[in-house]
Amino acid sequence: MTIAYGVVRPPGGEPRVAARVDGRVVDLSDLGDAFRRPSLNDFMTLGRDAWRATTERARGLDGPRVDGECLLPFEVADYVDFYSSLDHATNLGRLFRPDSEPLLRGSAIRRPHGQRMPGPTFGPSTRLDIELEIGFVIGTPSRLGVPVPVEQALDHVFGVVLVNDWSARDIQAWEYQPLGPFLGKSFATSISPWVVPLDELAEYRVPLPPQEPPLLDYLATDPWAYDLELEIELNGETISRTNARHLYWNIEQQLAHLTANGASLRTGDLLASGTISGPERDSSGSLIELTWNERFLEDGDEVVLRAPQLQLEVRGRITP
Amino acid sequence: MTIAYGVVRPPGGEPRVAARVDGRVVDLSDLGDAFRRPSLNDFMTLGRDAWRATTERARGLDGPRVDGECLLPFEVADYVDFYSSLDHATNLGRLFRPDSEPLLRGSAIRRPHGQRMPGPTFGPSTRLDIELEIGFVIGTPSRLGVPVPVEQALDHVFGVVLVNDWSARDIQAWEYQPLGPFLGKSFATSISPWVVPLDELAEYRVPLPPQEPPLLDYLATDPWAYDLELEIELNGETISRTNARHLYWNIEQQLAHLTANGASLRTGDLLASGTISGPERDSSGSLIELTWNERFLEDGDEVVLRAPQLQLEVRGRITP
Repeated sequence: MTIAYGVVRPPGGEPRVAARVDGRVVDLSDLGDAFRRPSLNDFMTLGRDAWRATTERARGLDGPRVDGECLLPFEVADYVDFYSSLDHATNLGRLFRPDSEPLLRGSAIRRPHGQRMPGPTFGPSTRLDIELEIGFVIGTPSRLGVPVPVEQALDHVFGVVLVNDWSARDIQAWEYQPLGPFLGKSFATSISPWVVPLDELAEYRVPLPPQEPPLLDYLATDPWAYDLELEIELNGETISRTNARHLYWNIEQQLAHLTANGASLRTGDLLASGTISGPERDSSGSLIELTWNERFLEDGDEVVLRAPQLQLEVRGRITP
Repeated sequence: MTIAYGVVRPPGGEPRVAARVDGRVVDLSDLGDAFRRPSLNDFMTLGRDAWRATTERARGLDGPRVDGECLLPFEVADYVDFYSSLDHATNLGRLFRPDSEPLLRGSAIRRPHGQRMPGPTFGPSTRLDIELEIGFVIGTPSRLGVPVPVEQALDHVFGVVLVNDWSARDIQAWEYQPLGPFLGKSFATSISPWVVPLDELAEYRVPLPPQEPPLLDYLATDPWAYDLELEIELNGETISRTNARHLYWNIEQQLAHLTANGASLRTGDLLASGTISGPERDSSGSLIELTWNERFLEDGDEVVLRAPQLQLEVRGRITP
């Protein structure tokens, strides 16, 4: 019975924090001021003991239930997108560099315009794609100038969302050297309306084989991943089944790396895993990998990303 | 008599918005709620007519004056760092790719740790550098999905700050391919405590020669730049004199580009110009260019960036 948190606006009412408990959506606004807010951020600042106590209470609450529209669950502070799937990195390297080594709930996604090659010409992207990712939401901030040790990293994480990092491959391929992606990514990012608290994921943790090459001390941890099933559905058809265990770097290591130079964490920071691809073609996390550069999104296409064990999904439909 | 806005906290008092008028710092908190705030953001949302009216009033105000500590002048929403100086891009390309073509006021800057080559080994950066830039602050937001036309771009800009984009060249050189800089940049960015309203810069606008290759329509404007003198001082010695007119792309074009894919502007967004370097060695905007990769910052070094005509400066001192 996985618990998740979100923000619900009942018809004619004010937005409030709600918990989804075994399919029921329970109004938490009686639990205190932090729950009578249009975002989870105040709740997220309360820290891990409060999160655990709330999850315990929410599990036991029999009501009141609440119906309404799900809103963006938290105000995003900074956003980092990692690159952690060895298979995705290998595939994209082969596709983009063949001569070398290889926020919102997501309803309508407008096809972005940009510079496309050959040319460049300016116009609508013809290679609109998805990226299947999981995202970690920071609850407890860290101090500027003080790196977070790898073994304390999870203390800062409030929970997990599913992420679709919409990508325009034609814009991205032309713009991204040498300073990285920009307009090929910045037009839209969708997250699931429900956030699963991190504690709920403990049962999915599995050990991984040792990492090669050996790790620098600040990244050293017994390797592990979340064994979470993930799916991509395009117009009603499941086109990929993959798993978060394919990520080479885990969230502990990503947090230690992100803060190694003294950069701080803020409540609401969203750390996305990077695209999750497995070793088989049909376990890829993007269309460019699934179709090996042959098919992209058409106007009207609907994409649903799912994490069935967590009952998380992200939906989006392409508009011109 | 250039006006600038900032946030000042008098001893024992609450932070409030102030204007610097010809060297005097004038308390604006009697002008309304938006001025009794610890940041400029509420004032920045009022729009261009209100900004102009306030500048007129501030010019005429004889008092009350206010003394105190200058705080970070606005809450930064999103941060973009462009790459707009042809000379800087050429220099960095030669230095990094020889074989191919907190935001705080900036007092103490801790030397960041990270992965350095050869190795990689983990430890303090040995190639800590500066980047001299100007930054444009967004006042009026734009609508998601609606690109800002190049000729309307300036309507969204509240004002200008001076920016030091501290950079660890050893970390950056190893990490930045293929996805761009990350920990080599994210440890610190300093801005001037005073923001000069955009209208004050009109007198410095100068035309530039036509851009080559010809511009795509969405970027097409009669080329221009701000003829603003800029200086870098290291431990009391001026080591570079350069000028914002060396920027190949202007802020109108940067804004049109940034929003071309439908990405929106938010109040508080900071758009930094990218490092400003001129054609001569001693008109460069970074140490790596000024010393051609031979000297970087030592512990205890103090760097001051200045825009003398606007009376803007950014100071920082390196600590271990």
